[in-house]
Amino acid sequence: MWNKYNLHRMRTLQSVTENVISVSFKRWHSTKETAYSSPIIPMVEVKRFIFDCMKAVNTPEEYAHQMADMLSEADYRGHFSHGMNRLDMYIDQIQNGVCDNTAFPQVLKDFGATAWVDGKNALGVVIGNFCNKLAIEKAKQFGIGCVSVKGSNHYGICGKYASDAMKEGFIQFNCTNTSPLSVPTRAKTSFFGTNPFALGAPANNDQFLLDMATTTVALGKIEVAVRKGAKIPETWALNVDGRPEIDSQKALDAAKLSPLGGPEHMGGYKGSGLLFMVELLSGILSGSKFGPHIERWGKLTKPANLGHCFIVINPECFAPGFQGRLEDILNELRSCPPVDPQKPVKAAGDPEKEHMKAIDKAGGVRYVKNQMETCEDYPKD
Amino acid sequence: MWNKYNLHRMRTLQSVTENVISVSFKRWHSTKETAYSSPIIPMVEVKRFIFDCMKAVNTPEEYAHQMADMLSEADYRGHFSHGMNRLDMYIDQIQNGVCDNTAFPQVLKDFGATAWVDGKNALGVVIGNFCNKLAIEKAKQFGIGCVSVKGSNHYGICGKYASDAMKEGFIQFNCTNTSPLSVPTRAKTSFFGTNPFALGAPANNDQFLLDMATTTVALGKIEVAVRKGAKIPETWALNVDGRPEIDSQKALDAAKLSPLGGPEHMGGYKGSGLLFMVELLSGILSGSKFGPHIERWGKLTKPANLGHCFIVINPECFAPGFQGRLEDILNELRSCPPVDPQKPVKAAGDPEKEHMKAIDKAGGVRYVKNQMETCEDYPKD
Repeated sequence: MWNKYNLHRMRTLQSVTENVISVSFKRWHSTKETAYSSPIIPMVEVKRFIFDCMKAVNTPEEYAHQMADMLSEADYRGHFSHGMNRLDMYIDQIQNGVCDNTAFPQVLKDFGATAWVDGKNALGVVIGNFCNKLAIEKAKQFGIGCVSVKGSNHYGICGKYASDAMKEGFIQFNCTNTSPLSVPTRAKTSFFGTNPFALGAPANNDQFLLDMATTTVALGKIEVAVRKGAKIPETWALNVDGRPEIDSQKALDAAKLSPLGGPEHMGGYKGSGLLFMVELLSGILSGSKFGPHIERWGKLTKPANLGHCFIVINPECFAPGFQGRLEDILNELRSCPPVDPQKPVKAAGDPEKEHMKAIDKAGGVRYVKNQMETCEDYPKD
Repeated sequence: MWNKYNLHRMRTLQSVTENVISVSFKRWHSTKETAYSSPIIPMVEVKRFIFDCMKAVNTPEEYAHQMADMLSEADYRGHFSHGMNRLDMYIDQIQNGVCDNTAFPQVLKDFGATAWVDGKNALGVVIGNFCNKLAIEKAKQFGIGCVSVKGSNHYGICGKYASDAMKEGFIQFNCTNTSPLSVPTRAKTSFFGTNPFALGAPANNDQFLLDMATTTVALGKIEVAVRKGAKIPETWALNVDGRPEIDSQKALDAAKLSPLGGPEHMGGYKGSGLLFMVELLSGILSGSKFGPHIERWGKLTKPANLGHCFIVINPECFAPGFQGRLEDILNELRSCPPVDPQKPVKAAGDPEKEHMKAIDKAGGVRYVKNQMETCEDYPKD
């Protein structure tokens, strides 16, 4: 199923390119080649490419910039599944009229520190940015803000919204529901998505940024195990019968992810509760589609109608010196004696910071061969 | 260590009773005995006993009632570790002057939908109720409210605060930091507590109530495994060297709990992030003690200075019909085909509901022999 889906995506990307006259990867080949023979693409060129692709399908410039910022940020942070890799999906949905790339969200209710928004089936990223800014405004005015939105689409990585709010000194939480792919404790069939959330907070010269799916892993990790021919831990996924599966191929075929924790006796019922919590804040609060009623991903024939929630908190409303204390605990955590001296203790967001630093040092991002080939299929201009 | 601690607690309870003239369990023996020869104690009598004990150490009546409501609610829900079982700890701290049972919290900052509170080292439950009510008032006025508090003590079960807010139609989140007992991913030593949180939301004739520690399990579960002579899953706890331990006795001796998920490759780094998230919202935001700086439990010689966070959301500010949708998804979840027909799928809070129903049917709660013996050591009046 997953393989077929990938093929479908690649075909889609090829067909899209017929309209994308101005878009070419040729320039990338002029940058220095590595031992892996994958070129290094400067981030500015990644953004340019995504921007041009979005423009080619008649996305207003401002929205195309927002898409370019989101997808390039995902790759910059090392979340490659959510960056360039998803560009074809967004374009596919626009071209099939499933998502309206010219629409703009609308506030349906505005009360005190809260707002309820209809995304109007606009680009998920445009909706996400709108709601996040609104929640930030509310937090400026009331110390905390909460915005719930329905009628949305895939909105990129949760961490980007947290990151944007953190730049203004705020604590940010956001979450989204997604297409069914995970199985609640004791159940046999998928009910929830991977239901990710982020919580970020700024510190002096530092930050905490937790950005996680509430399943143990994303499906991509199982794909990697299949490619390596490796077994997977019993807490990752289930087989068709709903039992823990350690054979990566069987797990991939079944496509049934475990809630964080895995089986019930290993704490998976807590992960199951987290999946529900995100669904409650995303789908139930906003009135979007929820749980098993969300369409399967990549098979959209009608609007996704996803829901998200954005909560922004101004730490200045509480104990003075928040950023200093956060800096302290982050450093104390990293100074914990590690079990393996080769593997120092990290805070949430540290691996992403290291990835961004490496990209800055290299002068750009290096995509896997598959991704490059997909992009190189674009017609020469 | 844990055994010694238990002994300490029992001795403390005995010494306390010298002041507790009016408190006796005698009446309990008049209720019907069971096959386990444990008497059934009516909930009203449980409350009376706790109230009288608190009064005997000069707790103002209103606060004694709040303590009785909290501890009896924990037992009613089946969270016996947090009910009668903790009474001696609270009394011990009052008698040693570590906690001030006559104090009342004070608002330090009040801005829009937020408030920062100093608990003034009052009873944790009194502080918790004060902050929760304040957050509810904020939610009434602004749609959402956020209250952060420092200078607090153990505040009982998170679920009780969620439950109270749910009765008024609100979504409620609250969390607390606790004494170091869990080990972050890759680390060798304890850094965080069990850092629990609750998220509750009301539905038509139903509710969702997630109340969980962000470790895989509480230490009590390992104690139970030791008593049974059973091995424990590798995701529960670590040994003295910081490696996953399946021998329950060794795990209990080390007293190093794993973050939800267990080892890093099984998803434990997400649990580690959740532990930090709760610490950030509890300790870092409020300016209380945090992480490894919190005193070991049961060894308090000075105020605990714990931090909590209370967030209340009014669902009426968003899509109409919230409670109906939540009822729908709860029922859909429970209707999922189960792997084992003997184990139906449950929503968070369902086991507690069943426990309360069973207690209502039985006419009261049945404590384990140990707890009863501890209580029966109280002097005859």
